[in-house]
Amino acid sequence: MDKSTLNYTAEQVFEIERELRYVSSIIKQKGREILANFPITPPQFVALQWLNEDGDMTIGELSNKMYLACSTTTDLIDRMESNQLVERVRDTNDRRVVRIQLKEKGQNIILEVLEARREYLSSVLSNFSKKDVEDLSRTLSILHNEMGKE
Amino acid sequence: MDKSTLNYTAEQVFEIERELRYVSSIIKQKGREILANFPITPPQFVALQWLNEDGDMTIGELSNKMYLACSTTTDLIDRMESNQLVERVRDTNDRRVVRIQLKEKGQNIILEVLEARREYLSSVLSNFSKKDVEDLSRTLSILHNEMGKE
Repeated sequence: MDKSTLNYTAEQVFEIERELRYVSSIIKQKGREILANFPITPPQFVALQWLNEDGDMTIGELSNKMYLACSTTTDLIDRMESNQLVERVRDTNDRRVVRIQLKEKGQNIILEVLEARREYLSSVLSNFSKKDVEDLSRTLSILHNEMGKE
Repeated sequence: MDKSTLNYTAEQVFEIERELRYVSSIIKQKGREILANFPITPPQFVALQWLNEDGDMTIGELSNKMYLACSTTTDLIDRMESNQLVERVRDTNDRRVVRIQLKEKGQNIILEVLEARREYLSSVLSNFSKKDVEDLSRTLSILHNEMGKE
């Protein structure tokens, strides 16, 4: 690639890589602290989050989203099913297909965890200017979109 | 707090929380793919990164940065020491104090891993405008700073 056409400098890449690494690490730790108040584990949170966001899905679909082997996801869902967080439901048109569905208890917990995360983020954003909040939201959305293309 | 003074809306908090969660998850997965090409594990990468960034430190200091129990960090450092990535060094002024120091092999690996992460980020940033790169860098830095205050 012709370096003269680049819209970023090596210093910016250095900075952004580092900031993303630090911010991710703080969010992971803060997420664990929040989960400590709820009866679910971090992988269970991730599974509930995907089911809440994208609706019922098969073990295979959930495994892809979670970057896990199907056998690992099966074990995870077994535990979540015995804890009444989710249930396995047969497709009414094709009874060979089984999907995982959020149960009310799982739905309530995920909504409360996400609300606690938003409360934390609100406190972090309270010292941002209006423009900086807009810029952060816009550029994170572009970043997510571009990362998804890889 | 008086809601009329807020510089962010509930929708922005919703969006930013979600984007941060997704971006962190993609970075974690991409980071694992990169590490698969190197002879270190994810926790070893995190330890090497802190030693590279902040210099020699005690097990206690490293445990705090990694949010790990000292016994877990001790096990981690034992394995890294036998793999020639780090070594335990006694303080010359106070020989009761032992610090972890990067060895050349550990230094080389961490620099290569960080370079691979920057290459990935560069490809992601290649479709950003110059202004969006600047806005992302600036707002991530504010975010990190504000999260550190919590």
